[in-house]
Amino acid sequence: MNVEALKNNSIEKLEIIKVKEKSGSSFVDDVSVEEPLEIKVCYGEESEMKTKNLSVTMRTPGNDIELAAGFLFTEGIISNLGQIKTIEHAKTECTRNNENSIVVELVAGYIPDLMNVDRNFYTTSSCGVCGKGSIESIRTVSIFQSMSKKTLNIELEVLYQLSEKLRSLQDNFSSTGGIHASGIFDIEANLLGLREDVGRHNALDKLIGYFLLEDQLPLRERILVLSGRSSFELVQKAAMAGISVIAAIGAPSSLAIKLAKEFDISLLGFLGKNRFNIYHQGANLTIKNLS
Amino acid sequence: MNVEALKNNSIEKLEIIKVKEKSGSSFVDDVSVEEPLEIKVCYGEESEMKTKNLSVTMRTPGNDIELAAGFLFTEGIISNLGQIKTIEHAKTECTRNNENSIVVELVAGYIPDLMNVDRNFYTTSSCGVCGKGSIESIRTVSIFQSMSKKTLNIELEVLYQLSEKLRSLQDNFSSTGGIHASGIFDIEANLLGLREDVGRHNALDKLIGYFLLEDQLPLRERILVLSGRSSFELVQKAAMAGISVIAAIGAPSSLAIKLAKEFDISLLGFLGKNRFNIYHQGANLTIKNLS
Repeated sequence: MNVEALKNNSIEKLEIIKVKEKSGSSFVDDVSVEEPLEIKVCYGEESEMKTKNLSVTMRTPGNDIELAAGFLFTEGIISNLGQIKTIEHAKTECTRNNENSIVVELVAGYIPDLMNVDRNFYTTSSCGVCGKGSIESIRTVSIFQSMSKKTLNIELEVLYQLSEKLRSLQDNFSSTGGIHASGIFDIEANLLGLREDVGRHNALDKLIGYFLLEDQLPLRERILVLSGRSSFELVQKAAMAGISVIAAIGAPSSLAIKLAKEFDISLLGFLGKNRFNIYHQGANLTIKNLS
Repeated sequence: MNVEALKNNSIEKLEIIKVKEKSGSSFVDDVSVEEPLEIKVCYGEESEMKTKNLSVTMRTPGNDIELAAGFLFTEGIISNLGQIKTIEHAKTECTRNNENSIVVELVAGYIPDLMNVDRNFYTTSSCGVCGKGSIESIRTVSIFQSMSKKTLNIELEVLYQLSEKLRSLQDNFSSTGGIHASGIFDIEANLLGLREDVGRHNALDKLIGYFLLEDQLPLRERILVLSGRSSFELVQKAAMAGISVIAAIGAPSSLAIKLAKEFDISLLGFLGKNRFNIYHQGANLTIKNLS
C-alpha cells in the first residue's frame, strides 16, 4: 500500500476569524496550499538537447516528481518509463522558488511529438512561477486596482442569506448535481446576475463578461458569491473586475488568500446560513451587527 | 435582474441505471453538458488583420459570447468594451461544430499585448474542438486501448465501501475541507495508492505518475475512485493509464460519459454507502449480487 504521508508544505496554518450567529472569534485554521508548478521537458539527440516549457499548473506541493511523470504520460508525451532519464526540481531565475519548477530529462534520441499535444498547456514568461511573480503581473494588468474603494457596510443577515439564494436560483445544479455557479449580489442581497458552468472559471468569466457587455464594470459595491471553493484563478478574475467582496460556499486555497490580502479584497469561505469564515477583511468593509 | 433562462443545450437527458441497496433500475437523468469552446481573437491594423487561437476551454454551452468577452477581459487582453468590434461563432473546418468556436474581432488599430499573457491557454491542432476530434486524438495516443480487457467481477459490497474508505484516508480534506483526492483500489476494496491536490487533474496525474514510476501500468484490474465529479479530462487521463472502472463521488459531465462509452470504461457516479448511478457499464464488468 502506498499512502504517502502528507507533506508539511501541503497545509498552511493561518489565523482567521470564525463567525457563528452574531459573533466572530479568532481561530487558527488549516488551509490547502496552492502553488504554481512549472513542468519543463529536456529532449533531443545527445549532441543537442533542448529544453521546452510544457505547462504551469496550480498544484498542492508534494509528489511533484510523480505529478510531472504522470502529466507527461497522460498527455501522451511519453509512453513508458524507459523514456525518462531524470526528473528533478530545477533552478529558476529566482532560486528560492526552485521547488516550483521541475525538469524531466528524456533519454537522448527519444524525440516526443510535442505537436500532437493539442490540449492545454500554459506557457510562462520570466518568473511567473513564484506566486509573487503571478501576483505582480496581475497588478500591472488590472485597470481597477488603482481606483479608490468605496466604504461598504454590509448587514450580517445579508451575508447569511447569500448561500441559500444562490442555491435556490441554481436550477441546473439541482437537476444534475454537477455544475458550478457564480453570482453577483448587491449589498442588500438582491441578485444582479448568475451564471453556471461545469468549469468554475468559465462560470465566472461568463458572469464578468455579462457585466462588461452591459458596461457595468467595475463591480465595486457588489458581492461575488461562488458555489464552490475559491482558488487563485477565481480571485484573480474577481480582482480584474474590481470586485471587493468574495463570499464562497467552499474553502479557499492558500494562494487565493494571499492574492485577496495583496489586493485588499474581502474573502469569506464556508458561507452558510448562520456561519462563515473571514480569511481577509478589506479595509473598506464593515459587517454590521457582528460582535 | 438578469438570470438568463437555462439553455436547452446545457443539460442532456440520458438513460442510466440507478442502483440502490441490492437492485438497479433504469432511469432518465439530467447531466450537465461539457463541450470544448475555442476562443480566437482577430486583431491588427485595418489593412492587415490576423487571427490567433487563444484558448480551448471545456465549458457548458450557453452564454458563449459573455464567456469570450469575460475571458479576454479577465486575462487582460482587453481593458474595455470599446476595444471589441464583434463577437460571433465561427465556422471551423468541420462546420457542424461551429457552435464550439468563437471569434472576437477587436477594433482595427488596437493591438493586444499577447506576449503579456503569461498564463497561456490551449493550443489546438486541426479539429480538436469537436468532442469527437478530441476523443479520436486520445485513441491515437493511448498505448493501452488496443489491449484486450480482462473480465472483472466486483462485489456490490466492495463498491459500497469505496467512498467511505477514500474519505477516511483523506486526512488533508478533513482538516482543510478544500482538496480533491484520487485513489486506486483493487477489486477487494484494498487501497493501493491515494493522492490529493487542490486541482483534481493534478491529484490524478500524481496517482498515475506513482504507478508509472513503480512500473505498474496499465491499471487494468483496478478501480479509480474520485472524490468529486468526473470530467472529460479525468476520464481521458484514466483511459491513458488503462483504467477500466471509474467510480466518482460526484456527477459526471456529458463528455465524460461519451468518452467512457467510446473506450468502454465503466463509469459510476454519486457513489455512496448504499447507492450509485451507472452511466456506462463496460462489457468486461460484472457486479455481483446486483439484481
